[in-house]
Amino acid sequence: MKFNPVIEHLKTYEPGKPIELVVREFGIDPKDIVKLASNENPKGCSPKAAKVVADAASLMYRYPDDSMMELKAALCQRFGISEKEIIIGAGSDQIIEFLCHAKLYGGAKILQSEVTFAMYQIYAAACGASVIKAPGLAHDLDAMYKLYKEHEPEIIFICAPNNPTGDCLDLKDIENFIEKIDENTLVVVDGAYQEYASYKDPNKAINPADLINKFSNTIYLGTFSKAYGLGGMRVGYGIASEHIIKSLYKLRPPFNVTTLSLIAAVESLKDSEFVEESIKECFEQMNSYIEFAQKFGIKVIESYTNFITYILDGINDSTFIADALLRQGIIVRNLKGYGLNAIRITIGKENENQRFFNAMQELLKTGK
Amino acid sequence: MKFNPVIEHLKTYEPGKPIELVVREFGIDPKDIVKLASNENPKGCSPKAAKVVADAASLMYRYPDDSMMELKAALCQRFGISEKEIIIGAGSDQIIEFLCHAKLYGGAKILQSEVTFAMYQIYAAACGASVIKAPGLAHDLDAMYKLYKEHEPEIIFICAPNNPTGDCLDLKDIENFIEKIDENTLVVVDGAYQEYASYKDPNKAINPADLINKFSNTIYLGTFSKAYGLGGMRVGYGIASEHIIKSLYKLRPPFNVTTLSLIAAVESLKDSEFVEESIKECFEQMNSYIEFAQKFGIKVIESYTNFITYILDGINDSTFIADALLRQGIIVRNLKGYGLNAIRITIGKENENQRFFNAMQELLKTGK
Repeated sequence: MKFNPVIEHLKTYEPGKPIELVVREFGIDPKDIVKLASNENPKGCSPKAAKVVADAASLMYRYPDDSMMELKAALCQRFGISEKEIIIGAGSDQIIEFLCHAKLYGGAKILQSEVTFAMYQIYAAACGASVIKAPGLAHDLDAMYKLYKEHEPEIIFICAPNNPTGDCLDLKDIENFIEKIDENTLVVVDGAYQEYASYKDPNKAINPADLINKFSNTIYLGTFSKAYGLGGMRVGYGIASEHIIKSLYKLRPPFNVTTLSLIAAVESLKDSEFVEESIKECFEQMNSYIEFAQKFGIKVIESYTNFITYILDGINDSTFIADALLRQGIIVRNLKGYGLNAIRITIGKENENQRFFNAMQELLKTGK
Repeated sequence: MKFNPVIEHLKTYEPGKPIELVVREFGIDPKDIVKLASNENPKGCSPKAAKVVADAASLMYRYPDDSMMELKAALCQRFGISEKEIIIGAGSDQIIEFLCHAKLYGGAKILQSEVTFAMYQIYAAACGASVIKAPGLAHDLDAMYKLYKEHEPEIIFICAPNNPTGDCLDLKDIENFIEKIDENTLVVVDGAYQEYASYKDPNKAINPADLINKFSNTIYLGTFSKAYGLGGMRVGYGIASEHIIKSLYKLRPPFNVTTLSLIAAVESLKDSEFVEESIKECFEQMNSYIEFAQKFGIKVIESYTNFITYILDGINDSTFIADALLRQGIIVRNLKGYGLNAIRITIGKENENQRFFNAMQELLKTGK
């Protein structure tokens, strides 16, 4: 059977190995597995949200409220925007999918930084678009501007903070960049880790309402998967001018967020104490990762997220390290697929981090 | 901002009005609302599944097992197929989306019956395809074959049982039809309501493994949204030959089914007693709908699903009836948008059905 030739060459996203797979492959007891691969919140989710969802479990038979009235109202209040300026997706991933389908057709192009969230190029490729990459570990906005002038891409992706490196552009630099971009090019500012960045450094903090009021060609993406601890429930959102949201809405499948996900997100949004605690503890624990790296001469990228990236050049091979850790039940993300000899480690709970340090220390000492 | 011209003319799916909306519009107490509009299971979901999900609520922070190992294994065992012959989606809707993206490009066409599940043409239109419709209330396979020869569509949709009419083709007729279709045309057999049809009449029962072994160009769709009572959790599946599944997989976004949805589906699949009871009670209650229709001279279509369609020609206007019921807190589906003067009513619990009969009787007596 013949299929759209576009899909022939598609690569699939390689997610962090789930605990189930490690259990199966290495026969390790699930309770001995430390998963530091998918930037999940190590504190879990808001206990209040878990309680409300548990109480609502028997509602699973009801289709979700497709207007998402309650969650939208809560997000609009939070961000000071109108209901016409927001769209909710099955993770912010799905918003990326919508906007690729909306903007990319007939020989289209996207522009992104070389090392950034993998799904941009995966969704773009599924639309048959080509991907222009500005070289470098961090977003090089000057290089991106040159490439924008040269290639005239339909979409420009800015990931702030950037995944999988952890660094973050200053808001003023992002704004200076977008100012130079024409009205018909969609600029995506992916703020999946913004809660962490804005806590650590006000220069990195993005106010989505301000951003879209200044730039009518810009969409801000947020998610409940990280600081809010709902990675498993697939809830994210896009905030943009009404004309963009209206077009994306046409591509939204009905019931794209589950009944329990909506309930979980509404409740999690109320529990700001849990989010603040999560972020505070994350940066406290991150200090041990920085100290460990200094002790062993590992280069780290300053992180504004809930993960840290260890560059292993001159130290060891990232595939060797990631695999060796995996055999001990410690799951980290090998960044070899991004062209880096590096591993990305989610900041876990203290005991989980200690497991990582102990195992890593042993590997670095023996060199194998 | 310019968008893909394809999306300019897209219509959005009109789902059954959620209870939240009726509460808001008419100020009716939620407990007084009877929702018979979305073919949800009036018994709810499996209490065992609800229990397991409630106990697992604190796992919402973990990304789903993206291999969906456990659910796939359970479905493979249930259907006697291999893991390479199944793909799991956020509802069977999402499988329809995948296969439209996989097959429809560059002036493509789909073929379907005139009155059938609305999402086929919505997803096809989003891919820029045109929609060929065989006229008639029921699937007219002879007419469909003629249109197939004339238009050479990329995809043919067969909905068995058909939504929103409730009738169902015999398996042998479906097979005789597919036998005449060339290898490169994808035939979709949507079995969203198959659990009901196969209970009522073995001639309607489809065995997905047999179907795909006979026809390598055919995909069978199933769902947990109806008999399994998990409409809110968005879990469906496609069963087809490996070469089809492999192509669809390339279009699957990672983590397309939530952590709690996977748990719910696995557990629901075990609770066959709940499903059987649901179906039995559905057909028991359906008898009252048939009797009521006979009493008032309303034409019904014989239903092999958990809903029934009342044709109101010569009786009243379906928009008037649906709106009048809505104002009393009784939500049914007006089929005017499908070109029918008819309403589709989900078979509810006895007291819910009684509410419908009382209100309907009053409307039919007064004629307004």
